[in-house]
Amino acid sequence: MKNLLVIESGGPTSVINSSLYGAYKEGSKHYKTVYGAKYGIEGLIKDELINISEVPDDKLVLLKQTPGAALGSARHKLSKDFSDPEYEAILENVIKHEIDGIVIIGGNDSMDTTDKLSRYFAQNNYKCDIMGCPKTIDNDLVKIDHCPGYPSAMKYIVNEINAIKQDSFSYNRGKVIIVEIMGRDAGWLTASSKLATLDNNYPDLIYLPEIPFDIEEFVSSVEAVYKRKKKVLACVSEGVRDKDGRYIMTYSNSTLRNDEFNHLQLGGVASVLSGIINDRLNVPTRGIELNALQRCSSFIASKVDVDEAYRCGREAVKALVKGINGKMVSFKRVEGDEYKVKYELKDIHEIANKVKEFPKEWIIGCHDVSEDFIGYAVPLMNKEVKPKYKDGVVEFIKLKR
Amino acid sequence: MKNLLVIESGGPTSVINSSLYGAYKEGSKHYKTVYGAKYGIEGLIKDELINISEVPDDKLVLLKQTPGAALGSARHKLSKDFSDPEYEAILENVIKHEIDGIVIIGGNDSMDTTDKLSRYFAQNNYKCDIMGCPKTIDNDLVKIDHCPGYPSAMKYIVNEINAIKQDSFSYNRGKVIIVEIMGRDAGWLTASSKLATLDNNYPDLIYLPEIPFDIEEFVSSVEAVYKRKKKVLACVSEGVRDKDGRYIMTYSNSTLRNDEFNHLQLGGVASVLSGIINDRLNVPTRGIELNALQRCSSFIASKVDVDEAYRCGREAVKALVKGINGKMVSFKRVEGDEYKVKYELKDIHEIANKVKEFPKEWIIGCHDVSEDFIGYAVPLMNKEVKPKYKDGVVEFIKLKR
Repeated sequence: MKNLLVIESGGPTSVINSSLYGAYKEGSKHYKTVYGAKYGIEGLIKDELINISEVPDDKLVLLKQTPGAALGSARHKLSKDFSDPEYEAILENVIKHEIDGIVIIGGNDSMDTTDKLSRYFAQNNYKCDIMGCPKTIDNDLVKIDHCPGYPSAMKYIVNEINAIKQDSFSYNRGKVIIVEIMGRDAGWLTASSKLATLDNNYPDLIYLPEIPFDIEEFVSSVEAVYKRKKKVLACVSEGVRDKDGRYIMTYSNSTLRNDEFNHLQLGGVASVLSGIINDRLNVPTRGIELNALQRCSSFIASKVDVDEAYRCGREAVKALVKGINGKMVSFKRVEGDEYKVKYELKDIHEIANKVKEFPKEWIIGCHDVSEDFIGYAVPLMNKEVKPKYKDGVVEFIKLKR
Repeated sequence: MKNLLVIESGGPTSVINSSLYGAYKEGSKHYKTVYGAKYGIEGLIKDELINISEVPDDKLVLLKQTPGAALGSARHKLSKDFSDPEYEAILENVIKHEIDGIVIIGGNDSMDTTDKLSRYFAQNNYKCDIMGCPKTIDNDLVKIDHCPGYPSAMKYIVNEINAIKQDSFSYNRGKVIIVEIMGRDAGWLTASSKLATLDNNYPDLIYLPEIPFDIEEFVSSVEAVYKRKKKVLACVSEGVRDKDGRYIMTYSNSTLRNDEFNHLQLGGVASVLSGIINDRLNVPTRGIELNALQRCSSFIASKVDVDEAYRCGREAVKALVKGINGKMVSFKRVEGDEYKVKYELKDIHEIANKVKEFPKEWIIGCHDVSEDFIGYAVPLMNKEVKPKYKDGVVEFIKLKR
């Protein structure tokens, strides 16, 4: 083996760098040099690589507690047309750096990149194997039990909901709290709020983006709970839409904005809904948007998740060493009392651009989630990380990019 | 000594229950029974007490990791007029339960309650000593180095700002992030974002409520940083006001709302400002409101803070046992290389209703904070808590109230 390249792709998570570290650790056993691409596939196109092998391991181990994409990431879709000059640039750069193995850590879009590159190299008779390594807080990759990144986001959400309840219901006064959780199209993250009910009688209402959101139903459900308990905690996906497909967040007058990739930036539905509840029911209401915090608060990551993400990185490189190409590392749950997974490989083209939906049978009515979901989710949050701190602050690695 | 009563008062923090636990631990050595008042002073007025001594200690120790007010809290101002029937109800209940010592854990308003009760009992020749125990994330009590609750909020803020930066600046694209931090009138919490710069070149801009906020200055400062770095992180107090005293959060069209105590509920300035930046500079902008999370995320509490809060509870009871009345537990920093504090008592009437302002000399221009603040603040965040988890969730105690 010559040199290995690792690419971080798409939206970051609390554990994406754990996969990078796993790929590096396994890679440094078999390859001369492990490179990382600056800012995703863009770094490979522009010939901007980081020599990870030059960084001391006592720094690199901090990857396991560093959120965000340490190498930098991108949302860059390669053309379907292999004559696009980006492909030529990529080929030139892999030849130049003698790269014969690539790991791409990412979600469904990134698996598309993995698939295209793998076919392009084959077509050009360049021997460079490519493996996908799964990652997304959205938990929407198919052919895998769950996606690395999701359990840590879930653990953050459940712990913060418990804490919010403790804090917000400290007074003997009525109060409605509306917590906004990420997930544009899939309810995986919002559903995880259900786990807070295990040790808590909250949240009362859980609204996933899969079910058309009806303002009148919401107001009357909140009112019903309020009458009974005087304290209401509702968890709502940022992506809830009405029956006509209109985002509820757009019901306010605030300016709608695009993100850096020209997609509508979601956010604000908790604020919109708390305004409506306050107006209609005249009860004190607070909206809390968990925002980016749910994908970057690595100090409350799931140790199960960190370990699985790390292992996926290693398994991707092990596959490359065996000459395997165009697959994604996956795992399935092993039957038994104790939670355990078994690693396996899946064809990338079975995964790229596909979406795993939240099971319809786990959705109860318009604002609840079933016990089956709890059984699936609880083991994923298990075990705690023990990050290294300096002066009270979690230490992060900063790779020069 | 007969029976001790502990009251939690005002807005909760991550460590208010550590003080309760300290008061209980010391109290159970000297008193027959330790009671807690349900929902602050209201519980004493209504004769709604919790017998804490009946709860097993292996449950009570969870108070040290439980945010919110475990007993329940209140914002209830006693009348200046001692003929108000609430005083009579209180006297009746302390006599009934043979309470001869009270600890009130709270901020400046609660110290006012402590002061009034102490004078009322004296006037009625009832021997019941009362001690104040400091608490507030706002850090605005006078006659104390810093307030229990503040260091944990600070530690949360600094760690989340670091994490937000890692996450939000993962792409090679321009981005402006505006983080909204609590603190209606005092900049103590927003200033703590400065500590993130120690290991980070962010935040770029820090706006405290003490300095009149000027939209034009803000837009041009963001623009200047953006031109230089393409990534901007600004931290803004929820309470920033323009030169006419108008809250910047009210610049939007969204409905203004009151909280459960009929005060204007702050929140939304990050959203308002990111709308303005997006409109004026046409750059992708995200507002992140840390909201209630900064006072309840006990899993990232400062161990220094937990220990000091606990010790304050103990010291309050120790003073009661010595027959001391009408004082608040305080501490000052001991000179030397290592951070250490020395406990002492301060007259309650020197503290009640007074506010410790953020030092003007620590504010630099309109959007920065000095090195002196860093020296003051860094030691407070030190040491980590190791909370007990169950199935991935921090365990909280739930006292029946």
